[in-house]
Amino acid sequence: MRLLLVNPNTTAAVTGTVMRAAAAVAAAHTELVGVTGGFGPAVIGSRAEEALAQHSVLQLVADHAAGCDAVVLAVSLDTGLWACRELLDIPVIGMTEAGLLMGCTVGTRLGIVTFEHRMQAFYRDLAERHGMASRLAGVATLPVPAERIFDDPQGVHGEIVAACNRLVEQHDAQAVLLAGAVLAGLQPALQADVPVPLLDGVACAVLLAEARATLRLPKARAGSLSPTGGRRVHGVSPALTRLFAGQP
Amino acid sequence: MRLLLVNPNTTAAVTGTVMRAAAAVAAAHTELVGVTGGFGPAVIGSRAEEALAQHSVLQLVADHAAGCDAVVLAVSLDTGLWACRELLDIPVIGMTEAGLLMGCTVGTRLGIVTFEHRMQAFYRDLAERHGMASRLAGVATLPVPAERIFDDPQGVHGEIVAACNRLVEQHDAQAVLLAGAVLAGLQPALQADVPVPLLDGVACAVLLAEARATLRLPKARAGSLSPTGGRRVHGVSPALTRLFAGQP
Amino acid sequence: MRLLLVNPNTTAAVTGTVMRAAAAVAAAHTELVGVTGGFGPAVIGSRAEEALAQHSVLQLVADHAAGCDAVVLAVSLDTGLWACRELLDIPVIGMTEAGLLMGCTVGTRLGIVTFEHRMQAFYRDLAERHGMASRLAGVATLPVPAERIFDDPQGVHGEIVAACNRLVEQHDAQAVLLAGAVLAGLQPALQADVPVPLLDGVACAVLLAEARATLRLPKARAGSLSPTGGRRVHGVSPALTRLFAGQP
Amino acid sequence: MRLLLVNPNTTAAVTGTVMRAAAAVAAAHTELVGVTGGFGPAVIGSRAEEALAQHSVLQLVADHAAGCDAVVLAVSLDTGLWACRELLDIPVIGMTEAGLLMGCTVGTRLGIVTFEHRMQAFYRDLAERHGMASRLAGVATLPVPAERIFDDPQGVHGEIVAACNRLVEQHDAQAVLLAGAVLAGLQPALQADVPVPLLDGVACAVLLAEARATLRLPKARAGSLSPTGGRRVHGVSPALTRLFAGQP
Amino acid sequence: MRLLLVNPNTTAAVTGTVMRAAAAVAAAHTELVGVTGGFGPAVIGSRAEEALAQHSVLQLVADHAAGCDAVVLAVSLDTGLWACRELLDIPVIGMTEAGLLMGCTVGTRLGIVTFEHRMQAFYRDLAERHGMASRLAGVATLPVPAERIFDDPQGVHGEIVAACNRLVEQHDAQAVLLAGAVLAGLQPALQADVPVPLLDGVACAVLLAEARATLRLPKARAGSLSPTGGRRVHGVSPALTRLFAGQP
Amino acid sequence: MRLLLVNPNTTAAVTGTVMRAAAAVAAAHTELVGVTGGFGPAVIGSRAEEALAQHSVLQLVADHAAGCDAVVLAVSLDTGLWACRELLDIPVIGMTEAGLLMGCTVGTRLGIVTFEHRMQAFYRDLAERHGMASRLAGVATLPVPAERIFDDPQGVHGEIVAACNRLVEQHDAQAVLLAGAVLAGLQPALQADVPVPLLDGVACAVLLAEARATLRLPKARAGSLSPTGGRRVHGVSPALTRLFAGQP
Repeated sequence: MRLLLVNPNTTAAVTGTVMRAAAAVAAAHTELVGVTGGFGPAVIGSRAEEALAQHSVLQLVADHAAGCDAVVLAVSLDTGLWACRELLDIPVIGMTEAGLLMGCTVGTRLGIVTFEHRMQAFYRDLAERHGMASRLAGVATLPVPAERIFDDPQGVHGEIVAACNRLVEQHDAQAVLLAGAVLAGLQPALQADVPVPLLDGVACAVLLAEARATLRLPKARAGSLSPTGGRRVHGVSPALTRLFAGQP
Repeated sequence: MRLLLVNPNTTAAVTGTVMRAAAAVAAAHTELVGVTGGFGPAVIGSRAEEALAQHSVLQLVADHAAGCDAVVLAVSLDTGLWACRELLDIPVIGMTEAGLLMGCTVGTRLGIVTFEHRMQAFYRDLAERHGMASRLAGVATLPVPAERIFDDPQGVHGEIVAACNRLVEQHDAQAVLLAGAVLAGLQPALQADVPVPLLDGVACAVLLAEARATLRLPKARAGSLSPTGGRRVHGVSPALTRLFAGQP
Repeated sequence: MRLLLVNPNTTAAVTGTVMRAAAAVAAAHTELVGVTGGFGPAVIGSRAEEALAQHSVLQLVADHAAGCDAVVLAVSLDTGLWACRELLDIPVIGMTEAGLLMGCTVGTRLGIVTFEHRMQAFYRDLAERHGMASRLAGVATLPVPAERIFDDPQGVHGEIVAACNRLVEQHDAQAVLLAGAVLAGLQPALQADVPVPLLDGVACAVLLAEARATLRLPKARAGSLSPTGGRRVHGVSPALTRLFAGQP
Repeated sequence: MRLLLVNPNTTAAVTGTVMRAAAAVAAAHTELVGVTGGFGPAVIGSRAEEALAQHSVLQLVADHAAGCDAVVLAVSLDTGLWACRELLDIPVIGMTEAGLLMGCTVGTRLGIVTFEHRMQAFYRDLAERHGMASRLAGVATLPVPAERIFDDPQGVHGEIVAACNRLVEQHDAQAVLLAGAVLAGLQPALQADVPVPLLDGVACAVLLAEARATLRLPKARAGSLSPTGGRRVHGVSPALTRLFAGQP
Repeated sequence: MRLLLVNPNTTAAVTGTVMRAAAAVAAAHTELVGVTGGFGPAVIGSRAEEALAQHSVLQLVADHAAGCDAVVLAVSLDTGLWACRELLDIPVIGMTEAGLLMGCTVGTRLGIVTFEHRMQAFYRDLAERHGMASRLAGVATLPVPAERIFDDPQGVHGEIVAACNRLVEQHDAQAVLLAGAVLAGLQPALQADVPVPLLDGVACAVLLAEARATLRLPKARAGSLSPTGGRRVHGVSPALTRLFAGQP
Repeated sequence: MRLLLVNPNTTAAVTGTVMRAAAAVAAAHTELVGVTGGFGPAVIGSRAEEALAQHSVLQLVADHAAGCDAVVLAVSLDTGLWACRELLDIPVIGMTEAGLLMGCTVGTRLGIVTFEHRMQAFYRDLAERHGMASRLAGVATLPVPAERIFDDPQGVHGEIVAACNRLVEQHDAQAVLLAGAVLAGLQPALQADVPVPLLDGVACAVLLAEARATLRLPKARAGSLSPTGGRRVHGVSPALTRLFAGQP
């Protein structure tokens, strides 16, 4: 099985972090392919950067999805998720979506920890768009930007653990999702300090993508996610133009 | 007052339709500026095209918002709405958002009529994201693509009227929003054939944008919609790069 | 345009406050007519007073709506809103409704500040009846009655600012509505001390009423808000009796 | 136990219907006192009439609640319910509220049958305000005004049975509430023709009022429903003025 | 009237507590029959024990419901409620359900106090399953197991009062339900120390059961709660086998 | 990996059906162990049978979970799901839960097809308890009992296809879950006749159980799903008594 991991920001180090987390859980026969955005935000830390990254996600799947069996969106805002599901014939899984869905099998109430207080409302909205409003215990944000983890990992780890424990004690969270591509792979290091299971979005997404590929479900032939039947777009790359046009 | 109307698709005829609908309600002292997408979808008829159009919206406001007092997104999916609110210091209003908000002063239950059955779920989701789930009577879709209105306007008018009446009779809609930039300006022609008020998203958005500009509310200095403080993006236009960087 | 502002309590000073706030935003060509309740509560500070004020609202519109182009209910509980919409052929806008609707264009999560802790549940219910449950960040109440603002304005201003800041810091409010007719016009004085936009219900309602009048929507001919077709009432004023009877 | 049944419309025949239904279920030791509105709507068939009837309800309890152990609001819109709960020290029960609450012990999904298509949205809103949105299977309205039942009872009975059966077959209703004071007492006559239990709001309210009186719960001393502490109102009856003032 | 009170745990002392609370409110002509589980959990303090107690509830009604006019489930998790409603022809009332329904006539927002922090999420879910999500102010749990009340009643009383007051002050609860069969009968002793009405689930359930029996509603002949028509079960008691088979 | 599939009804043929469906998707290294209820309902077709089956589920995991890496509840009502999660240290997955969670990666709106019209409300409630209310397009029930599939498979297949297509055409379902253990394994045979993906709950559950086992999440040490710390139960099997007591 060939699995495409899409990091729409332009920071290759994030792709590296994601690939290591993916490799830790992927099946032996799964080949992992990681790609990094060629344009767009350096790191997504606002709604505006997320909007711009939608184009980057589309460009990356247009360039790299051919020959893959499934796609993981390695961006914690699940940017472009349903657009990709519409355009592609293969399963597409978002990392925060995956963490929340898998989390539903772990606890009735889920917490989310992420960076940037300004994104708290966005993550709450995202959880609601995934239909998880009734499962959300709360969103805790760290008082530092995502980039800090490269400079001061121990300091950030301490902040994460504290935030997780607040979600458990004050909001009755029964599991906590570490939301952020740069947080991929941290669960083993932090789990001992938090009394409920920690969820890694990338790990969950890789496993769900493998599961979806195993199911071999067909593309919908009717309804909201059926092929668009060929749409015209202008001024974008030839690969993306062909993808919209429905050409192989 | 100078009002920017943003049509992120590349079809200038749609911008023309929008401008005529806007002019019909704008205040005498309001100057209307309409701009058309330089790249992206010809017409938005799928989730994927909507995702791509986010970049187009950002590009258009980066190029044209300076010197304006407010922005109207003349795209019925309210593409890039919160991203623009985050980036800009002036009010930004989406046309479907505006139609729904204004509709809340008209009836307790609102219907939506639009093109493309595949977009029914998207519009329902959009209404929910606007917090309007409890006000939505239903979404009726026309069995033709949006482009048809240029070829067979009378036929499409008949379909719209029939859909509105179904929403009134079967779903208890007390007002109906005509959702689609190409439907802007149709309300006067169709109103007599529908027993409840018809809402024109562009007209509502222009009036709300004028109202918001009159209120002279400041940009938030804290929280989810405060200035991002300078974000780095790569491979996009200089104007958009400067907008993300927070440079005038 | 002639705009009727209805204050159903019997305190003329409140009408004065409301008229000043309205005049600050109304269009040059808008004539403002303010009326004060002839019977009913001195100030509305409980559910029971709100119930009684419904009659007062109906009486005021029966006496004064003729010849007007729109009505603003200058009572922060939006008393009699849908009843008036049913009876009248012109737009009717509630001040808290207007503040919430306009606020939806400002932030994804809205706070409300008002007087009287006992009314906290009422405002929450009111926001839910307006379909705004998912947009409500919280309701903060001041530990003083509404009348206090006439005696100790500076003290009340300090309480309001503190309450707004609590809503921003603890509940992630991105905008705050000052709910209370006696709070009309305070936004300019308090805005500098609060880091998110403050919404003035009366100002929002005046602008929405003007917008609605500009749209020239017809009265519904079918459904829940169509004319009642003549209803018999007893023991009330001749003007109100005629209004119920559907007589001009 | 002395139970006050309040019919705020001015039609004494409706009070008679209500009293017979109440007598059929009241305990042997319960004394029933029925009162009819002295002013207001002849029959409530619109939102505007409901708004006016709030004053009538308040007037009736001001005049008649003294010496009673509980109050039943014999008006299917539960007019003035929370206002009365705030003002009075004794239990107050609404007939539609009672039917819905009792219905929750009968089925997971409840239907409502009532008159006047225009009131369908109102009853749906009412059920939601009672927190019953998730329990509501649907609201079916009869294509005749409430007054018709006095002229053509058999015809109306047939319409009711048909509506109940539609709610069962198409909306999976497991019990149906006959909402309308004029429908009080009909359950025995119609039950055989409907395959799920029929709920009589007046009967349910009388039994809940007796139950609440038996519990001997105190008036809240804090919060939203505590005594208002004396409120000033003008231009209403002396009894109502005293009730607002908190004077015995 | 003969009323069966079902305590599915195996602790007879709990049945005694329940019977005293029931006797305090039951009508003079009501005969109370209390039964205790013959197998299953000693006290229910987890989801697993609740699951096991479902069998115990079914066994008890199979053995004892014949000849009764209604059943009260004297277990605060309302264990087996809808299963019993399906199997039996007589009304069945859960004690927490009853407390919440009766509470809806007392306040718009209800608090719940119970034992065991681990059950907080369960009670919240239970309230939601009863359709009470919008009425729930909060769930406060005592930091002691239910059994403690037999050893240190005064200490537990103090904890309950403190928890009630937190729900009033911090969560705007207008009434509080004491959830737990071992808490039955405590309301009179604790009421003076809490400023809002306290609800006793057993008392409420007895009164609702009497009310339901008085209504004489028929068993549904169609839909989700109609007789199952004879179902085969294996390896359970003869009485339970006959009950499933639909044999008298 | 050793995976326990629990069929709590007493019909071994259903276990056989489930095992074949599981084997079709399980990883090569996964060992599947299927167990059938020793007492309880022959087939679950009512709420009462589901209640009884809770004991059967607990008994089966007490007898067979030791040495397994995960448990799949092969009963479409997800009977005993959270009870098992509380008692066991290994992942537990319900088949309908799994179908809905996996379905969330396939479409925004999901349909459910199952047997027995009386269970429609139960499945809707179940979806809501899983937090999926906003994702549920509808529940379609077949007009035959589950047992029919053994006698007339082709006839039942036709009914299923028709129900799926109704959900797609009338309710905008983008994927449909075949809910019922006896329907396990049917997806390949029916997929060609339905234009949207069909979900097999057992297949989804096996894949999710494997994924969860791969994640190696620890048992919660705090909160609602932490070990119960030893609970006393009476009159049940020694193995179940030991499981409740927390003894290995």
